[in-house]
Amino acid sequence: MSIENISTNKVFDGWHKQYNHQSQTLNCKMRFAIYLPPQAANGKKVPVMYWLSGLTCTDENFMQKASALKLAAELGIAIVAPDTSPRGEGVADDPEQAYDLGLGAGFYVNATQAPWNKHYQMYDYVVNELPGIIENHFPVNKQRVISGHSMGGHGALMIALRNPSLYQSATAFSPVSNPVNCPWGKKAFSAYLGADSKKWLQYDTCELIALAQQKIPMLVDQGENDNFLEEQLKPHSLVVAASSNHYPLSLNMRQGYDHSYYFIASFIETHLYFHAANLGLTE
Amino acid sequence: MSIENISTNKVFDGWHKQYNHQSQTLNCKMRFAIYLPPQAANGKKVPVMYWLSGLTCTDENFMQKASALKLAAELGIAIVAPDTSPRGEGVADDPEQAYDLGLGAGFYVNATQAPWNKHYQMYDYVVNELPGIIENHFPVNKQRVISGHSMGGHGALMIALRNPSLYQSATAFSPVSNPVNCPWGKKAFSAYLGADSKKWLQYDTCELIALAQQKIPMLVDQGENDNFLEEQLKPHSLVVAASSNHYPLSLNMRQGYDHSYYFIASFIETHLYFHAANLGLTE
Repeated sequence: MSIENISTNKVFDGWHKQYNHQSQTLNCKMRFAIYLPPQAANGKKVPVMYWLSGLTCTDENFMQKASALKLAAELGIAIVAPDTSPRGEGVADDPEQAYDLGLGAGFYVNATQAPWNKHYQMYDYVVNELPGIIENHFPVNKQRVISGHSMGGHGALMIALRNPSLYQSATAFSPVSNPVNCPWGKKAFSAYLGADSKKWLQYDTCELIALAQQKIPMLVDQGENDNFLEEQLKPHSLVVAASSNHYPLSLNMRQGYDHSYYFIASFIETHLYFHAANLGLTE
Repeated sequence: MSIENISTNKVFDGWHKQYNHQSQTLNCKMRFAIYLPPQAANGKKVPVMYWLSGLTCTDENFMQKASALKLAAELGIAIVAPDTSPRGEGVADDPEQAYDLGLGAGFYVNATQAPWNKHYQMYDYVVNELPGIIENHFPVNKQRVISGHSMGGHGALMIALRNPSLYQSATAFSPVSNPVNCPWGKKAFSAYLGADSKKWLQYDTCELIALAQQKIPMLVDQGENDNFLEEQLKPHSLVVAASSNHYPLSLNMRQGYDHSYYFIASFIETHLYFHAANLGLTE
């Protein structure tokens, strides 16, 4: 379980680092990024926010564009950003190289269908293998929170709903809330999980939130000018499903904001403060 | 002098916008980005910080990666980011497509040598044409400050030193302080300005700062772990030249920081506060 450091940048008195490692779960070499706040350099073990990115992204988008690191440094929260799919030679991709299937589009599920099932096991990677590596190699404690954007917003909420004892809180920007009922989700789940849509429900946030027993605090931000709002994201379905189960989820609709990292940057500090409160770092 | 809006993103309650326009100075179509803080939407005319980027960059790097927009929104400062060279079909490029000559490497000078002189007139574009367009089309006043990174740090300091009545203050991250004495500068200035190195001096910050009569406040941040520090950037030559003329320049050497946007993000707010004070926006 060795990891190879491939870049290091000092930022806000802490450190952004990228690593390569051979993933046993994904059966390929993977890259991830970690931000270690200054507190971690002083022998203190810090909590971790896992960030799951959206379609086409890698470990780099959030670290470079989200304006999150200043407050993470102040609060003493590490951030870990995995890639969005398995990568490399021999990893299946969409024959048409569509942006919403295959490379860059793992959807955080465990594929059961060939040719995807050989590598596309992103659910297990994010829930099990990656946190194991992080907790083994870095000065972090076992406190985890999770956030993400779009496809990664789906991943963050879905993973938290299935593993409520592993995360203190979960948030999302513009999540794909109801993948079993939107084009992106139907396309990906058909390919990765097969035609039987009953098998998709285990990865559907609306389905899971309506049935959840153990509940953790959740926060969602959604731009009202998001091009994908009605067709792909369906935040109102999420609110209806959460309400039906009295699930503690807050949705902020943000007038004028779109689907970009400019939107994420504008509100990421709200999400970090939300996590910090649930981690007991602030009042 | 029409301009074409090609993208718009709401960010921190203000607006990031990209425009195309036909540049008379550069003799080609150019793209720039502007951030308009929320104050500008309310009929107030705001001051402008011009940001000049480094080698290989476009208008996008600073807007996406510098974490500058939150504080710009609070202070009420617009930011304008031009491209780093002329672009498009027919614009000369280095035959070897090196990153430090031709496209993405205009060095903010007016080229006198063929084939560069047809389009590479970035000095005039940044000093004259672009501010004219900005002040004609957007709710900004005539108060300008200027900043930049690396090649753009050279551009910002050099332009401010040559036009001290046009800018209230100037700052730079990791500037190419003495281009007539470093490999990047010698290569570019030889190509654009010819073999006679006396003609290069008009664009050399160290030369200009030692001779300046009218002085404006200047601030420079430099990472001590910057790979280009000694060979290309030469901040100590800048300090010596400034001191010889009692020029008001502050240099912050930052232990552990490198040449990347992670470094810029870590200290951009210091630069914005510096400009704000010189613009009379803060105490």
